[in-house]
Amino acid sequence: MSGGPMSGAKKVMAICGGVGGAKLALGLSKVVPGDQLMVVTNTGDDFRHLGLHVSPDIDTVTYTLSGLANPETGWGREGETWQFMDSLRQLGGEDWFSLGDKDLAIHVERTRRLDAGETLSQITAGNAATLDIGPQIVPMSDSHIPTIVETENGDLAFQHYFVRERCEPVVTGIRFAGAADASPSPAFARALDDPSVEAIIICPSNPFLSVDPILAIPGVRAALKNHDAPVVAVSPIVGGEAIKGPTAKMMAELNMEVSALQVAHHYGDLLDGFIIDETDAASEAVVAATGVATRLAQSVMQTESDRTELAQVALSFVKDLRS
Amino acid sequence: MSGGPMSGAKKVMAICGGVGGAKLALGLSKVVPGDQLMVVTNTGDDFRHLGLHVSPDIDTVTYTLSGLANPETGWGREGETWQFMDSLRQLGGEDWFSLGDKDLAIHVERTRRLDAGETLSQITAGNAATLDIGPQIVPMSDSHIPTIVETENGDLAFQHYFVRERCEPVVTGIRFAGAADASPSPAFARALDDPSVEAIIICPSNPFLSVDPILAIPGVRAALKNHDAPVVAVSPIVGGEAIKGPTAKMMAELNMEVSALQVAHHYGDLLDGFIIDETDAASEAVVAATGVATRLAQSVMQTESDRTELAQVALSFVKDLRS
Repeated sequence: MSGGPMSGAKKVMAICGGVGGAKLALGLSKVVPGDQLMVVTNTGDDFRHLGLHVSPDIDTVTYTLSGLANPETGWGREGETWQFMDSLRQLGGEDWFSLGDKDLAIHVERTRRLDAGETLSQITAGNAATLDIGPQIVPMSDSHIPTIVETENGDLAFQHYFVRERCEPVVTGIRFAGAADASPSPAFARALDDPSVEAIIICPSNPFLSVDPILAIPGVRAALKNHDAPVVAVSPIVGGEAIKGPTAKMMAELNMEVSALQVAHHYGDLLDGFIIDETDAASEAVVAATGVATRLAQSVMQTESDRTELAQVALSFVKDLRS
Repeated sequence: MSGGPMSGAKKVMAICGGVGGAKLALGLSKVVPGDQLMVVTNTGDDFRHLGLHVSPDIDTVTYTLSGLANPETGWGREGETWQFMDSLRQLGGEDWFSLGDKDLAIHVERTRRLDAGETLSQITAGNAATLDIGPQIVPMSDSHIPTIVETENGDLAFQHYFVRERCEPVVTGIRFAGAADASPSPAFARALDDPSVEAIIICPSNPFLSVDPILAIPGVRAALKNHDAPVVAVSPIVGGEAIKGPTAKMMAELNMEVSALQVAHHYGDLLDGFIIDETDAASEAVVAATGVATRLAQSVMQTESDRTELAQVALSFVKDLRS
């Protein structure tokens, strides 16, 4: 894999989780040539369910970048059907996690290939190639680093917290099991050390559940911080609320102020720049006072042009930070 | 499991493979109380495909007896859809063996439960209970005894011969890998030694591919032969042709005459009675001359009443043989 499609030209590394992050990854894919974009994706949500290895964020990114995603939900596949689930329910199987008939294929194939000894990186790259996806989709690690959500009801595996319990239990902490012994995937490790990577964009994903698992891999945070490329994050908190998912609820439960400022604090000295939504213009000065460069943008991505425009803002911000 | 639903009353044991056998099993289920019928099913066709444990004959029997079967094909489920297969093909997966969206649930659940340590007998019984099936469905064995078809192109795993190669290679022999070290499933073993079993019906399944695997398990053939209950087989060859599947082609390739007589010869002294289709009335005398009792019947089961009537003929034949 050395050299490969990303060698040579200037490159962009996006760091993302699922639905929210994938939207910006799609925007970036419209403005950056495919072979110059790498999307490093959280795998802390991965789990074995019904014997199948499910990689929710990798699949969301894969479906989004290939145009197969369900545009209504942002996850799963367009035109999905649920015959398998109906039939599983009829047999008395576990039905709290929905696996669509189309979506099942990627889980069955991934499980088969993992069990045959392929790595998650190889399988993910193979699917991207088969689906004609230009950008490189890279799992954060080929090791399993399951996110454990510590709650007032005890520890929960991520999907048990997120889907089965619908994020209802009060969160008291989060940990990434086995992270200390894991390493970044080979392509991610190379990119961390690749001077031709000129921009590192942390997508507006959940900082605690989608980005922290990536930063928890030994060496990753330091390598990003020390990288020549500016690191720019997009705030997932807009107007004191999360655009999607449990970020705001979780921040409140962890006794954090639900604000863009708090997200900037959380990333700390990792950031060179921070993109704040225009609705939070009033917070810009206080974020800037912490020493990080800021930029305002329309960061709620409803249309495809919203995605492209936010990608352009992020890249021009990086360019300004480099000069 | 000792005692159980089959203890006490007079019982019927049906021995069968897939589609053809399941038709007669369904007929028997209409005329024998559910708790007095045991359907011992071939598992030589079982295989792991895409990482899933597929048990084609058990599923055909399960779907047939629960009313879920596709009435057009006799295998698979009614109202089946193929989104998984389309999606698997899109990802470049192996698509020669079709797994329907509904059907997938039983394979995924079986694989999960086998991997968790349950036996095929337990899983099969559990599915039958969940689907409100009265008769007991019993795998021939809880061990894997894969049927290997020896052909002029080399050895082929059963489904590779049957589905992938569409039964085209010329058969030179058949063997049941590991049969010598296997044992019958617990419920089958008990029934072989149960004097309340008063009828043993070998369904019109392929003698070589569906019934021989069962007879190949050490002790089974002798136990059936020595059982107090008469053993009656229904010829799957009618008018010199197989009602379904490759039986006739295979018999020709193995240098056998394609006839009911040849099937009777094949089962040999195992049989107390042999049911021949009315179209083969001319053969009855020559079969009877071998020493086996014969009965003529309309054995091509097109309608549900055909199935019930053949079941009644078989049971009354057994009754006559007992008296």
